[in-house]
Amino acid sequence: MVTARELFKVIPDTAPDLPGNAATPEKVALGKMLFFDPRLAASHAISCSSCHNLGLGGTDNEETSIGHRWQRGGRNAPTVLNAVFNTAQFWDGRAADLEAQAGGPMVNPVEMASPEVHVPEQLRGIPGYRDAFARAFPGEADPVTLANAQKAIAVFEAGLLTPDAPFDRYLKGDAAALSAEQKAGLSVFIDKGCIRCHNGINIGGAMYAKFGVFASPGATLLPPGDKGRYTVTRTDGDQYSFKVPTLRNITLTAPYFHTGTVWDLREAVAVMGDAQLGSKLSEPEIDTLTAFMGSLTGKQPEVTMPILPPSVATTPRPKP
Amino acid sequence: MVTARELFKVIPDTAPDLPGNAATPEKVALGKMLFFDPRLAASHAISCSSCHNLGLGGTDNEETSIGHRWQRGGRNAPTVLNAVFNTAQFWDGRAADLEAQAGGPMVNPVEMASPEVHVPEQLRGIPGYRDAFARAFPGEADPVTLANAQKAIAVFEAGLLTPDAPFDRYLKGDAAALSAEQKAGLSVFIDKGCIRCHNGINIGGAMYAKFGVFASPGATLLPPGDKGRYTVTRTDGDQYSFKVPTLRNITLTAPYFHTGTVWDLREAVAVMGDAQLGSKLSEPEIDTLTAFMGSLTGKQPEVTMPILPPSVATTPRPKP
Repeated sequence: MVTARELFKVIPDTAPDLPGNAATPEKVALGKMLFFDPRLAASHAISCSSCHNLGLGGTDNEETSIGHRWQRGGRNAPTVLNAVFNTAQFWDGRAADLEAQAGGPMVNPVEMASPEVHVPEQLRGIPGYRDAFARAFPGEADPVTLANAQKAIAVFEAGLLTPDAPFDRYLKGDAAALSAEQKAGLSVFIDKGCIRCHNGINIGGAMYAKFGVFASPGATLLPPGDKGRYTVTRTDGDQYSFKVPTLRNITLTAPYFHTGTVWDLREAVAVMGDAQLGSKLSEPEIDTLTAFMGSLTGKQPEVTMPILPPSVATTPRPKP
Repeated sequence: MVTARELFKVIPDTAPDLPGNAATPEKVALGKMLFFDPRLAASHAISCSSCHNLGLGGTDNEETSIGHRWQRGGRNAPTVLNAVFNTAQFWDGRAADLEAQAGGPMVNPVEMASPEVHVPEQLRGIPGYRDAFARAFPGEADPVTLANAQKAIAVFEAGLLTPDAPFDRYLKGDAAALSAEQKAGLSVFIDKGCIRCHNGINIGGAMYAKFGVFASPGATLLPPGDKGRYTVTRTDGDQYSFKVPTLRNITLTAPYFHTGTVWDLREAVAVMGDAQLGSKLSEPEIDTLTAFMGSLTGKQPEVTMPILPPSVATTPRPKP
């Protein structure tokens, strides 16, 4: 029988290294400022943290996020917590890593809506950022770039981990870390085949899967207009395929699925049974699976709000 | 000659007591959660901290704030920092204190837009808040009320102080805390009569003054439709009167005036000379006054982001 320790891995206490993007204290500090700075948005009113609220499981608990001029994003905002361990970023995996992801929302017209050339202009217009970029990227002639902002944000985000969930303590050998019901749920999770997609360190995040393998979840959960991974690869087999979301901290990150249309975790579990397993889960199975998922919530990162470098009279002003 | 020590007072390190609203650790912790919780807004997307960003001098650095469905507020958002020392809250003083103020934006349809009855409904729908209110207001049969939310927010905000500005060190006797130019600016500030309105612990915040005593600042800075304090008192003498804003942390809180239409502190100083002193300030006077104002920026509060009590399946959901 396959065991939990073969299928999953514990979340570490410290950030993994990012290839080609060494984390220095100066770069992490810069990334933290940028993560919280609403001046990266055209309006100066939306920051990374608006939709990836570290007080709310790294999400905004909205079906889809509210962006520039109250426009709605196309898909539910995934959590930033432990996101460094995902195989790629966004529901369709269109960004290879956190660094690539960070460039998306800033310039997306329905999110932060800063034109690409404007981001470095804005940052250069804030004297404290000129210094902070110079310290984070020493030796570069022109360190205040969008690419460097993405690097700095990525190293900050790589440290947004939630170690020490009951399930992690269980994986480390503390059999008492899970309740009897949670252990029963883990057995169902393994035996029913949830683990085919939800495995690895993030219990998800490692692969793509067609939504509706056995039965379509319906147009509310799977609107025909959003073909998921296919929009990136243009490969027929990827139609309606999405990145399998992490189940870590899932009790904090409602609503669920790429549409964000299911608010109740029990209901989401039932949908998964029907659509992905072709198996009508019994009420007791749904109960134990949901209880097991409660064991996946880890210690949330404690982050001190950064004091942001002040704007000056010549700093570019918010756009209406 | 009047001295700075007679006119001003230093910012203390710790929060003052609020009459009838004792600060307990539980109440401060609850107030901090509420301050950062966007679920107090109908949209679940706007919190107190959206417009009173502790990384940006307790303001949003917007002319007027962006509220529910991207509506604009009527006046520039004042800083929450040291606001406990203001004689009243809002530009028109319509709230007597922080506790009264905190109730305003939550229910204001252009700001957070939560109907008054909805706030406690929302909070009761989040189990962690039921516990947190019970701990903060022990012995109350029904502690989850809008009034108690306001009390908790007020005790948290009362601790948002910025002690140890160079000017405070100067007031305490450290003559070297101000530069020669800043000292010259302080002399101009006293001699020209800025101190008639900008005095006391907040160097402002203690009284109301008609905007345009000597000359109207024009319709951009003083739109005829906003009669200021008059809208509260209906007393003719209060027409176009506004609460004198604090000058503490003024380098962080652009744009200026109740309209937020002046982004350059030097320009704001010049406007004050013309409109309030009836004295065209010279360029050197503007320079030294602006330098003096730079000495009013204190140590910004270090705040750890609160982990918010999670929503559950039955928690009221955001309104579209």
